Amino acid sequence: MEAIKPYKKGAEYSYTLGAFPTYELITGKKKAVRSVYVHSQYTDKESIINTCKAHNIPVLTDDKLFTRISDKENCYVIGVFDKYEDILEEDTSHIVLVNPSNMGNLGTILRTSLGVGIKDIALITPCADLFNPKVIRASMGALFRLRVQMFDSFEEYRSKYKKQEVFTFMLNGEKTLEIQNCPRTDLFSLVFGNEATGLDDSYLLAGTSVCIPQSPEVDSLNITIAVGIGAFLFTHNGR
Amino acid sequence: MEAIKPYKKGAEYSYTLGAFPTYELITGKKKAVRSVYVHSQYTDKESIINTCKAHNIPVLTDDKLFTRISDKENCYVIGVFDKYEDILEEDTSHIVLVNPSNMGNLGTILRTSLGVGIKDIALITPCADLFNPKVIRASMGALFRLRVQMFDSFEEYRSKYKKQEVFTFMLNGEKTLEIQNCPRTDLFSLVFGNEATGLDDSYLLAGTSVCIPQSPEVDSLNITIAVGIGAFLFTHNGR
Repeated sequence: MEAIKPYKKGAEYSYTLGAFPTYELITGKKKAVRSVYVHSQYTDKESIINTCKAHNIPVLTDDKLFTRISDKENCYVIGVFDKYEDILEEDTSHIVLVNPSNMGNLGTILRTSLGVGIKDIALITPCADLFNPKVIRASMGALFRLRVQMFDSFEEYRSKYKKQEVFTFMLNGEKTLEIQNCPRTDLFSLVFGNEATGLDDSYLLAGTSVCIPQSPEVDSLNITIAVGIGAFLFTHNGR
Repeated sequence: MEAIKPYKKGAEYSYTLGAFPTYELITGKKKAVRSVYVHSQYTDKESIINTCKAHNIPVLTDDKLFTRISDKENCYVIGVFDKYEDILEEDTSHIVLVNPSNMGNLGTILRTSLGVGIKDIALITPCADLFNPKVIRASMGALFRLRVQMFDSFEEYRSKYKKQEVFTFMLNGEKTLEIQNCPRTDLFSLVFGNEATGLDDSYLLAGTSVCIPQSPEVDSLNITIAVGIGAFLFTHNGR
């Protein structure tokens, strides 16, 4: 088995740092797991070792690995896994992120999506590296319970998934999204733009463009907050 | 005038990094501004210089200062200001943050609060350093358009501000917050706990405890998302 190296975008594997996301990895993507490293000082070894045994996952010890790849002090478990590709469900609602560039934001959005029950995420490239350990950490391992698929363009996404009604979130969106008027629809795609640039005006015609009302005193809401509010409204509007 | 040093918590001054938050500083807290540094390479000098002139703020040049205190490549304006203390309004709604510990989260929450139109923020100490440039950056300068007051305890806050109806956000909150049932009240305090620990059970009795519905597949929503959803519902429920 090759030695585990600090993460690189081009590598075929990545890893979880910490017990919580490692359990999430095993729960959600068991087949991708290569091995789990447990630090000799870890106080709850038995649980993780039993979990790994139950899934035929090799448990290894290499305390130096932890200082080599983790800058967190209290990281005692590392899960190594092969990168994988998901395919979205056709009959569910989706969140579509167009060129998200910040890894912490991407992870937070994944965690939020799972929190509101939307489990299919489309990423339009170029975008932040989904498997970077920083994304995984910010997602608290939510990544492994979702289906995340990459597309070269929104058009490519749309050509493959046609059942969803599209809502694009834009500061100049035509419809102001209020609690009282949030569209009720069974299958939707909520589309959000890049942190710095938002969605360009071509997205005004990609579906129904909506705008989250906000004070003129702010430039815009943070993208993670916009996704949180938007996704909560669409999933809790009593449809 | 003393030389500007890298930020320290105990210092009497702090600074904004970048033109946008510096304009926000001048707009919101003009009296606190000591001076504005403009990099010799900055392409839009005239606007910031004119703004400073209009407010009798000294404009200085010291390109080495930028490399000394900013790790951002594209930072060309620095606003130096004296730390200040705010007092909350008595007749407005508030957001109360109990022991927020992460600077990025605190800044994002400030930006979100301003975005939904809640301009009075109570911080219960110990908490992240409000004036750390990382908080200011994450807030995009929203800090300067808000009133933020510190309290040693929730009881101290409550003894000073009694008009607001208190809602505590807790995973074990008694009332599940839905779009259809969000309480309508003119004056409210929305109380959120620390990122890792949330609010302890004593807060079940501090007011009406509410819970944002979320998938059992996530541990919890990120605190910034919880504030975003909670504050949006309370400010847009048609009261």
